[in-house]
Amino acid sequence: MAEELRFPTGLGTSDADSISLLGQDLAADLMGKVGFGELAFWLVAGRRPNPGEVRLFEAVLVALADHGFTPTAIAARLTYLSAPDSLQGALAAGLLGGGSRFLGVTEDCGRFLADVLAAADSDDYDSLALRAVQEARAAKRFVPGLGHPVHKEQDPRTPVLIAIATEEGLYGPHLRLFEAIGRVHPQVLHRTLPLNGAGVCGAALADLGLPVDLLRGFALLARAAGLLGQIAEERRRPIAGDIYLTVDRNAVYEP
Amino acid sequence: MAEELRFPTGLGTSDADSISLLGQDLAADLMGKVGFGELAFWLVAGRRPNPGEVRLFEAVLVALADHGFTPTAIAARLTYLSAPDSLQGALAAGLLGGGSRFLGVTEDCGRFLADVLAAADSDDYDSLALRAVQEARAAKRFVPGLGHPVHKEQDPRTPVLIAIATEEGLYGPHLRLFEAIGRVHPQVLHRTLPLNGAGVCGAALADLGLPVDLLRGFALLARAAGLLGQIAEERRRPIAGDIYLTVDRNAVYEP
Amino acid sequence: MAEELRFPTGLGTSDADSISLLGQDLAADLMGKVGFGELAFWLVAGRRPNPGEVRLFEAVLVALADHGFTPTAIAARLTYLSAPDSLQGALAAGLLGGGSRFLGVTEDCGRFLADVLAAADSDDYDSLALRAVQEARAAKRFVPGLGHPVHKEQDPRTPVLIAIATEEGLYGPHLRLFEAIGRVHPQVLHRTLPLNGAGVCGAALADLGLPVDLLRGFALLARAAGLLGQIAEERRRPIAGDIYLTVDRNAVYEP
Amino acid sequence: MAEELRFPTGLGTSDADSISLLGQDLAADLMGKVGFGELAFWLVAGRRPNPGEVRLFEAVLVALADHGFTPTAIAARLTYLSAPDSLQGALAAGLLGGGSRFLGVTEDCGRFLADVLAAADSDDYDSLALRAVQEARAAKRFVPGLGHPVHKEQDPRTPVLIAIATEEGLYGPHLRLFEAIGRVHPQVLHRTLPLNGAGVCGAALADLGLPVDLLRGFALLARAAGLLGQIAEERRRPIAGDIYLTVDRNAVYEP
Repeated sequence: MAEELRFPTGLGTSDADSISLLGQDLAADLMGKVGFGELAFWLVAGRRPNPGEVRLFEAVLVALADHGFTPTAIAARLTYLSAPDSLQGALAAGLLGGGSRFLGVTEDCGRFLADVLAAADSDDYDSLALRAVQEARAAKRFVPGLGHPVHKEQDPRTPVLIAIATEEGLYGPHLRLFEAIGRVHPQVLHRTLPLNGAGVCGAALADLGLPVDLLRGFALLARAAGLLGQIAEERRRPIAGDIYLTVDRNAVYEP
Repeated sequence: MAEELRFPTGLGTSDADSISLLGQDLAADLMGKVGFGELAFWLVAGRRPNPGEVRLFEAVLVALADHGFTPTAIAARLTYLSAPDSLQGALAAGLLGGGSRFLGVTEDCGRFLADVLAAADSDDYDSLALRAVQEARAAKRFVPGLGHPVHKEQDPRTPVLIAIATEEGLYGPHLRLFEAIGRVHPQVLHRTLPLNGAGVCGAALADLGLPVDLLRGFALLARAAGLLGQIAEERRRPIAGDIYLTVDRNAVYEP
Repeated sequence: MAEELRFPTGLGTSDADSISLLGQDLAADLMGKVGFGELAFWLVAGRRPNPGEVRLFEAVLVALADHGFTPTAIAARLTYLSAPDSLQGALAAGLLGGGSRFLGVTEDCGRFLADVLAAADSDDYDSLALRAVQEARAAKRFVPGLGHPVHKEQDPRTPVLIAIATEEGLYGPHLRLFEAIGRVHPQVLHRTLPLNGAGVCGAALADLGLPVDLLRGFALLARAAGLLGQIAEERRRPIAGDIYLTVDRNAVYEP
Repeated sequence: MAEELRFPTGLGTSDADSISLLGQDLAADLMGKVGFGELAFWLVAGRRPNPGEVRLFEAVLVALADHGFTPTAIAARLTYLSAPDSLQGALAAGLLGGGSRFLGVTEDCGRFLADVLAAADSDDYDSLALRAVQEARAAKRFVPGLGHPVHKEQDPRTPVLIAIATEEGLYGPHLRLFEAIGRVHPQVLHRTLPLNGAGVCGAALADLGLPVDLLRGFALLARAAGLLGQIAEERRRPIAGDIYLTVDRNAVYEP
């Protein structure tokens, strides 16, 4: 074939003596010197975060890592029960539940806020928020990040993440707009909903300058750690067999 | 149904006001105070690592995060090309390549070393290593962690990870045995192979007391960050379409 | 717990002596008497198809099973290269590319046609088609099922599937509307595009009364067979290693 | 680059006017003329099966398609609950449970029988079976295909599949050996276990000449149809939310 093939990348490469990652020498400059969360940020954003950014970013990952027996955690445990030889399959099965309904809120909220800000003609966050909630309501759409099935008054993660962002000088327009939504939505919806943790994480990630189309990816990375914890616990103290039997024994056949 | 259902867990739970994770208050005690790698260790091991353990553990994750255009990275990019609406699918597809041949070395090496140590009747690591390599050879099995297709002399990650383990007081029996294998194998195999990075990571994880059956899980967690980097780069500077066309245009039909 | 658990299903159940599936005795009534495609239809639709429906349905599955080196086929082969111990992982990785861009056309086309028909106030298919194409154009949306990168004049599957549907008395409103789109779209788009095979399959599945939200599922089932073929060929005559090396050797590092 | 790229395949290709699959014209020769099961066999085996082979093969697929609320079916439903926008993810999650413990029996049994036959020095199936069971017992290994948690006396699929194989002239050495194991194992194990359906399917697939390393693939293909049925039922009559709540409400937090 005549054409020349070129597959450019700025991530990793290696030769006989060295491994490069993100333009750094992996062994000499990164291992032992860069944290894992820091590296994950750098890999996606293409720039090294500063310590305050790392702290906020890792707080988001910690907030999203595990929430007990979510459908994705149960799916991972059941898959591990069926195919214990393939840990990667159990992890993948758990991550595949990271779609629109559960893990998607982080990305949906970040994108919603970014879209409002992109079209904004003022920096009066309360008016921007009011209009955005009114428009969502008129279109019969949910406002992502509002409401939680368990934390009906307040999601404990929300004020903590806002405090960390503020301490680190990273309280930016997405978080401001998100808090404004928290203040103004009762005027439109006629009830008061909490700003949920998945939503505040999306706002914080967007304020960190991470691409809104990939915010779900960070929720998935966080969840990967949580799912490993679930699988490790399943190995020590299995419950997937009991879950399966609970369903199977209470099956009612109605052809 | 009469029986009482009980699904015990020590990971996460929540009520209206608080979220607990690993017996801690997620918002008050973990967010902003615990790093992401630290949490991942804690989730799997069931105990909080000390700062030296975190440093070694994160060095392992950093070492394993990305290696350029591996088959798994290419698979993730091709899946993202085909189904850009489902980031979780692209990530899962990439992780599913984390099996015996590529990412499995970390786990295989940790288990190999642990098995030798479990059967050991002495603490003379060179004799243990010699016998282990002889037995592997007699059984026509590879010694996991020996050799690398690119780093034919030395894998640059190996001495760095050993140095970090030593600095942090975590240079334990698995790493000792691994280094002994590096010293003695030429007597048996009649050639000198490098101790590879995946292998030294497995030895270090085992010295950290992490369960050897789950070591592949840490390679997968590390790779999840690398795959997000690959997908983010694919979004900015796509190459999956070119890879597909390179294969398709050079297909030779031989029914 | 006081509540009674009930998990109803009309699919499968079994006791010590028999296995029921879809209200039939699996061993006595189904094995050797019902084809696999027939069973797949029955499982999803909840009703047994007649022989003509089976023929059209299986023609769709045959049409969609394999298309050579698609991105999904390559992803499955690369995953098999990396983790040959986990065939299910390679198959799953290939299916995960069955999203919006490639396999999604079948479902998108079926849904597009169903939506137009649901809102139709006449049975003049050409007018319905004209308005639908005009509205899609005004909204800057593609009309699913129109155009093909390789078959620029005609997709050979399209007339064959329409002929089979006609022979079996199954040429219904979705196929009629799809053909009408083929006739009228040049008036609006000012060029003539072929009706593609994925689209005609979606129209035929919708005329078979299958739920439009699940049409992608049949494309995935068909592709599962194709991917097994790809993996079987990869086992006999491997190329994934060459694909990987082609990419890796032509990587250009631009950090 | 100087080297010429060549990626050979005997499966599919296409040009502007035609699509080829397995050396046939897809539209003219396959669609409407070849069944889906027949095509799946052809794709993997590389040869077209005769009608008797198709009947036996499809009977196997029908036998393996669905077994009610298996762990894999539950995992697929939970994933569909979490990410209803990604049908491919729910299907993939279900297939990922197709590993060693559940779906693997088909492949394990086929391979076990093939290994015994490859080393056989006689065609006295009862002696071969006796020695194989004795050796498995001595090595503390299970004999794949023996025993079933529900069908403790007889798996109803076993005699039916053997009858179909016999009718079609396909009762070959793997099925003969499998039946011999059924006769002789009580002498060694001192109890009588049934020959299970997954095992007889493996024996039949092996007698069909399909590669034993890929037998799991047919179980996965069959299960893909069953999982689509589960997902379709979940859409009509959801239970995944109740399964999740059953687990979550009965979680006992023991940090």
